[in-house]
Amino acid sequence: MQFDTLITNANIATMSETFGYTKDTPYGAIHGGVVGIKDGKIAFVGTMDELGTATADKIIDAKQGWLTPALIDCHTHVVYGGNRSNEFEMRLNGVDYKDIAKQGGGILSTVKATRQADFDELYELSLPRFKSLVSQGVGTIEIKSGYGLDLDNERKMLKVAKKLGDDFGITVKKTYLALHALPPEYQGRADEYVKQACEWLKVLHDERLVDAVDAFCESIAFDAHQVGRLFEVAKSLGLPVKLHAEQMSDMGGAGLVAEFDGLSADHIEYLSTDSIVKMAKHGTVGVLLPTAFYVLKETKLPPIDAMRQHGVKMAVSTDCNPGTSPSTSLLLALNMACTLFGLTPEEALAGTTIHASKALGLQDTKGRLLVGMDADVALWQIDRPADLSYLIGQNRLQGLWVAGRQVGR
Amino acid sequence: MQFDTLITNANIATMSETFGYTKDTPYGAIHGGVVGIKDGKIAFVGTMDELGTATADKIIDAKQGWLTPALIDCHTHVVYGGNRSNEFEMRLNGVDYKDIAKQGGGILSTVKATRQADFDELYELSLPRFKSLVSQGVGTIEIKSGYGLDLDNERKMLKVAKKLGDDFGITVKKTYLALHALPPEYQGRADEYVKQACEWLKVLHDERLVDAVDAFCESIAFDAHQVGRLFEVAKSLGLPVKLHAEQMSDMGGAGLVAEFDGLSADHIEYLSTDSIVKMAKHGTVGVLLPTAFYVLKETKLPPIDAMRQHGVKMAVSTDCNPGTSPSTSLLLALNMACTLFGLTPEEALAGTTIHASKALGLQDTKGRLLVGMDADVALWQIDRPADLSYLIGQNRLQGLWVAGRQVGR
Ligand SMILES: [Zn+2]
Ligand SMILES: [Zn+2]
Repeated sequence: MQFDTLITNANIATMSETFGYTKDTPYGAIHGGVVGIKDGKIAFVGTMDELGTATADKIIDAKQGWLTPALIDCHTHVVYGGNRSNEFEMRLNGVDYKDIAKQGGGILSTVKATRQADFDELYELSLPRFKSLVSQGVGTIEIKSGYGLDLDNERKMLKVAKKLGDDFGITVKKTYLALHALPPEYQGRADEYVKQACEWLKVLHDERLVDAVDAFCESIAFDAHQVGRLFEVAKSLGLPVKLHAEQMSDMGGAGLVAEFDGLSADHIEYLSTDSIVKMAKHGTVGVLLPTAFYVLKETKLPPIDAMRQHGVKMAVSTDCNPGTSPSTSLLLALNMACTLFGLTPEEALAGTTIHASKALGLQDTKGRLLVGMDADVALWQIDRPADLSYLIGQNRLQGLWVAGRQVGR
Repeated sequence: MQFDTLITNANIATMSETFGYTKDTPYGAIHGGVVGIKDGKIAFVGTMDELGTATADKIIDAKQGWLTPALIDCHTHVVYGGNRSNEFEMRLNGVDYKDIAKQGGGILSTVKATRQADFDELYELSLPRFKSLVSQGVGTIEIKSGYGLDLDNERKMLKVAKKLGDDFGITVKKTYLALHALPPEYQGRADEYVKQACEWLKVLHDERLVDAVDAFCESIAFDAHQVGRLFEVAKSLGLPVKLHAEQMSDMGGAGLVAEFDGLSADHIEYLSTDSIVKMAKHGTVGVLLPTAFYVLKETKLPPIDAMRQHGVKMAVSTDCNPGTSPSTSLLLALNMACTLFGLTPEEALAGTTIHASKALGLQDTKGRLLVGMDADVALWQIDRPADLSYLIGQNRLQGLWVAGRQVGR
C-alpha cells in the first residue's frame, strides 16, 4: 500500500471502540503500531505486522512515543480585544469588583476594546492565544463571537476566527454568541436586543460565518425564554445550538439546550438530575471548564458521577477568555479536570478527543484514530497517555497533523 | 560607552529600590528604557536619554516589551528517575493510597528508579523538565538531591544537576537533601541514617557538590532534633541551610531553620506566628509552593498577611517533583500564588526574582536589574508585568540572557 505519510514505531491511543476503547482496552491502545495517512484521511491503523509491505512519501519514526487524535478545544473565546490583566492586578491589590465595574471593567471593557480594534488588530491580538493552543497539540478549535454585540463587530470576530483557521491549517468551528452580555446601548431593553440578535444571526448565517449558536443563560445574562427565542431561529436555519448553562445557578438551561437536540451544555456546575436525564436522552455533551472553576475559586463541583451514571458524555475545554479563564493550555485543563473534578486521565483525554468532537458535531470525522477519519494526529514524547494529564506546564508534543498536513513542531 | 549587548526600546521591571521598587514605583519600573550588558554584568539601566551615545556588538530592539530579571526557581527536585503518572492514574481510577504504597508506590518508587538509573539515564530523564523551566524564562534553578539516599546516588543526582547547569549556561544551585525520606534499608533506624547522612555531607562538600543543605521536617519524615543534628554539621562546614517545614503540621521547623540563620523555610502552610517572628529576625525567606498546594487540594493557606506584617520576604517556586508537583512552569506558579494565595502580581514577580535570589543567598548578584548585577535578563512580549501572573499556559518569553549570554529563544 502507498501512503503520503507513515508514522511508525508508535503507541497509539485510538480512542476508538474498534480497538477496544470503553470495552477491554484502555484508550483503545495499540502498542508497537503504525498510522498511515493518505489524501488527508487516516488510511491505516494497526501493528507493523498487520501493515505488511507499504511505501510512503514520508516516514516518521515515533520512537515509541504516543499518537493520539489531535486535541480538540470545543469551547473558547480566543478572539477578543484588550487585556484585562490590569483588572486582575487591581483585584489582587484589594480594589473591589464594584469599583472595577465603575471604571468600565469586566466583560464590557472587552466589548469596548473588541469594537475599537479593527480586523487586523483583532487578528494580531488573538494570534498568540491561537498559536499557544496549537503548540500544545490542538488541531480543532471552536471560537465564539460575543464581544462585538452588534452586527458588524460580531461579523468581524467570526471573520478573524475563520482567518486564523485558514492561515494555520487548523479546523476552526465558528459559534455565534451575541447573547453573551447585554451591550450598554440596550440597557433595560434586553428583549429588543434578543430580537436584533436573531436578525443578525440570519445575516451572518447567509454569509456562512456561523457553524453553531450559543448563549449565556444565567441570572446576570439571558433567561431561558430569551435563549429559546434565539434557538428557534437557529433551528429554522438548521444550525445546531449549545449553551453556557448552570455555571452559577440552576436556570434549567441544560435541559433547554437538550430539548433542542443541542450539541452541548457547558460549565454545568449547578446541573440538575432532571437536566442530566434530558442531556442523556438527546445526546447532549456536558462540557467541563475546570480552568474557569479554578480562577473563580468555585466550590460547587459539576455532578461528574451522575453524568457517568446516566451516560452523558463529558468534554473538557479551556474556556479561554479574558475574565474567568485567561488560559491557552488545553493540557492544563486535562490536569485540572483530573485534579479538581476527579476525572480519570482516560476520561480527560476522551474529553478533548472523542467527546469534544461530538460537542462540535464532528464525531464522524474527528476525535478518534480510525480508518476513514480525518488525519488529525498528535505525536507525544510520553511513556503513557496519563502523562498528558499528569504533567503540569510541560509540553511533550513532537508533531501535529491536521487533515494529513503537518502543522506543528 | 561600549557594550556587548544593548537591549533598547524596553519597559523594565527592575525590582530594584534604586528605581523606586517598594517605594513609589511598582516593580521599580522604567518606561522606554535600555539595559546595557558588558562582561556578563549589567552595565547600564535607564532611559534612552540617560544612556547618551553608546555602541554595542549586538543591539536588540525590545519593541516595547518588558524586561525583568531572569526568573529564579529556588526550590526544585527536577532530577529524578522513573515516572509516577501510573500512580496518578491509579488514584483517579479509585485505587487507594495504601494499595499504591503496597505496590511500591510513593516517594520510594522514585528512590528505586533514581538509584537504578545510571548517570546518563538520569540526565536524559531530567533534561525535558530542566529545558521546560528554562523555556519559560528561568535563569537560575535550585536542584535538590534526596532520591538517592545513599552516598553514591546522592552524588549522582548532584552531578547531574551540575552538568545540566553547565551544559545550558544556567545557574544551578545544588542542595543536599538526604534527609528527604528514610530509605528502606534503614527502616526503624532513623537516627543511624541521620548520622550517615551527616558523614556523606562532609564527603560531598569536599567534592564541591553542595551549595546548601535541606531536610524534610515532618511527622512522616524527620523531626526537629534530627534536622538540628544535620544543620550543626552544615554550620561547621560553612554551608547555608533551608528546610521543608510546616507543610502538613506545625513542627516548629521554620523557627529552627531561622535560628540557624537559614536561607528559607519552604511550604509553610502551617507556619506559626512564633516562627514568623524568628524568620523576620534572621532574614529567612518564606518559600511558597502553590502548585503542590493545588495538587494536594490543600485547604490550609500559608499565613501570607502575617508574613507581610512581619516583613518576611516571600519567594514562589514550582517545587517540581514527581509526587506533589509534577510542574515545570514557574509562570503557572505565579498565577497560582495570586489565585490561590492572594499574592499581588508584583509580590509574585518579586517571589521569583529579588526574594528568590535571597532564598538562594544570591541577593548581591541576581534577582534585580541594576548596574553591577549579573546580566540575567528575560524579555517578554507583554503589556505589563501583571501579564506574567495573569496569563495561564501562555509563554510570552522573547529572550533569556544569563551572565550576558543569550540562552533562550
Ligand atoms: Zn465560555
Ligand atoms: Zn520540595
